[in-house]
Amino acid sequence: MNSLLPKKTFFRSRVLVTGGFGFIGSTLTRELIHLGAAVTVIDSLAPEYGGNVRNLTGIDSCLQTKIFDVRDASGLEQCIRDQDYLFNLAGQTSHMDSMSDPRTDLEINVGAQLAILEACRHHNPQIRVVFASTRQIYGRPEYLPVDEKHPLRPVDINGIHKLAGESYHLLYHQVYGIRSTVLRLTNTIGPRMRVKDARQTFLGVWIRSLIDGIPFEVWGGDQLRDFTDVDDAVEAFLLAAATPEAEGGIFKVGGTLPLSLRELAEILVELNGGGAFTVENFPEDRKKIDIGDFYADWRLISEKLGWKPRTALRSTLARTLEFYRSELSYYR
Amino acid sequence: MNSLLPKKTFFRSRVLVTGGFGFIGSTLTRELIHLGAAVTVIDSLAPEYGGNVRNLTGIDSCLQTKIFDVRDASGLEQCIRDQDYLFNLAGQTSHMDSMSDPRTDLEINVGAQLAILEACRHHNPQIRVVFASTRQIYGRPEYLPVDEKHPLRPVDINGIHKLAGESYHLLYHQVYGIRSTVLRLTNTIGPRMRVKDARQTFLGVWIRSLIDGIPFEVWGGDQLRDFTDVDDAVEAFLLAAATPEAEGGIFKVGGTLPLSLRELAEILVELNGGGAFTVENFPEDRKKIDIGDFYADWRLISEKLGWKPRTALRSTLARTLEFYRSELSYYR
Repeated sequence: MNSLLPKKTFFRSRVLVTGGFGFIGSTLTRELIHLGAAVTVIDSLAPEYGGNVRNLTGIDSCLQTKIFDVRDASGLEQCIRDQDYLFNLAGQTSHMDSMSDPRTDLEINVGAQLAILEACRHHNPQIRVVFASTRQIYGRPEYLPVDEKHPLRPVDINGIHKLAGESYHLLYHQVYGIRSTVLRLTNTIGPRMRVKDARQTFLGVWIRSLIDGIPFEVWGGDQLRDFTDVDDAVEAFLLAAATPEAEGGIFKVGGTLPLSLRELAEILVELNGGGAFTVENFPEDRKKIDIGDFYADWRLISEKLGWKPRTALRSTLARTLEFYRSELSYYR
Repeated sequence: MNSLLPKKTFFRSRVLVTGGFGFIGSTLTRELIHLGAAVTVIDSLAPEYGGNVRNLTGIDSCLQTKIFDVRDASGLEQCIRDQDYLFNLAGQTSHMDSMSDPRTDLEINVGAQLAILEACRHHNPQIRVVFASTRQIYGRPEYLPVDEKHPLRPVDINGIHKLAGESYHLLYHQVYGIRSTVLRLTNTIGPRMRVKDARQTFLGVWIRSLIDGIPFEVWGGDQLRDFTDVDDAVEAFLLAAATPEAEGGIFKVGGTLPLSLRELAEILVELNGGGAFTVENFPEDRKKIDIGDFYADWRLISEKLGWKPRTALRSTLARTLEFYRSELSYYR
């Protein structure tokens, strides 16, 4: 995958991926298997979240999988003990669900994260941890592009909770020496992303509609966004884990040059060879937690880890469309 | 108390004080009773926290008190319904306890706060809320004095959780219109503060030792701190609640000019007419979560609410010493 990644880092290493049946988690798991790691995947496979058994089809015989909810603190010790790496991607990702059911978001994105770190501290203090954080902790940007120093003012429950989860990872590094790194992801897209609904990304619903031949809705349309190809995001996780200097660090993962949602929709229709969309006003309940324009400054991760977005947006979108043309039935 | 406070604001108003048997909560409750409010106090009276029945002695017949843990979400609705004001001071305050038992800190400072705001939203959306936040959410200051815009990088579990609690209050204002204000307190001191141990403030232990005639320990000694008299802090809560423009706002409550802990110890010994202290190195486990120098910029609250620290430090310390000379047996 990446020339900067030491080829042998993950070979025969023991790796735990929480949320490993999810979109990014499964793509990461596939790459780890390719690199020769002994991977254990845990995932609740709860229907509202990102986990999908189809995501690991074809490699399931090469890894251990456990249907396991990270909220079950009593089982964590056994999962974490004896691992070399923990890629901690389990989470509730829906902004709207976090507003309608804040308690569940709290238990997964805060309570379970605390339990995971307590398990590391008590049962495997040498483990190398990379945590999937999110741009949502910034809230509405005060300046663009957003970097690691930008103020943190989450505008929804999910952002508040992911910030607490991220803060735990940094605190456990500072106080207990847990070797953790935080990656703040932006919109990550690619094959295996959730298309059933907009719980993970609006783009999934667009792609499903395009393939089904029905018009999709663009809400607002003028908001600027950047997009990271899932393979590039996976590379950021691997580089972070492989770089001792990244321990205790926070890195903003970025993506393409920003473009408006309307431009994105147009490119998608073009790549699909046809399709239609309408531009709609933002629903009132979403407007209140919308963050407006957002794109990331990824100079720090580029400087420290040598990471940069490698995949052109059109290539990501074309690959994703192709994936769902044959796979959609498994993701509805 | 305060010339800026409209005299009639709280007269016959219905007020709920969570943590009302605590140090600041009980001082606030006393003032509210004096202003003619109908006050209900809820407090878990758990021995590790700030609640002490002695704190409301003499006025207990003028108010309703409920021994009630805010973690009991099912009882919150009834407490919050029909109140005009909520002064939300219930919390776990010990930094060390938050590190040794992070789950309990999570339940009180995060889980219960979410439940309180959900109860407001569903059962009393017009209630006026003032939340007691803390300087601990800032972590080690990047510049001094610390103002409302200073970055938030908590260095202990308690800081992470209080930040989430504060963020909920702002979010419920932005999204649901809950009329909440956040006050970020600094070291608040005065009669009724906890002296049993250092769970609330190191100063309590110093004062208890002085009265007992035994030397107290000053850890470090050079750290700069500012101090707010509890009556001044109470005034900030009342002004915040009485000022519609404060809704949705965050205000840093400040105090005296900064002085070092060693200087503070010297003043205290002088006011006590004798006593001794030793200067000790910081214990290793506390050093990791220590925030170094800290003092607050209180220009915003002065400008917007007309608040300023009124009480000289020597006067606060003398009054506190006098209080514990007669009351110490109730607070050991």
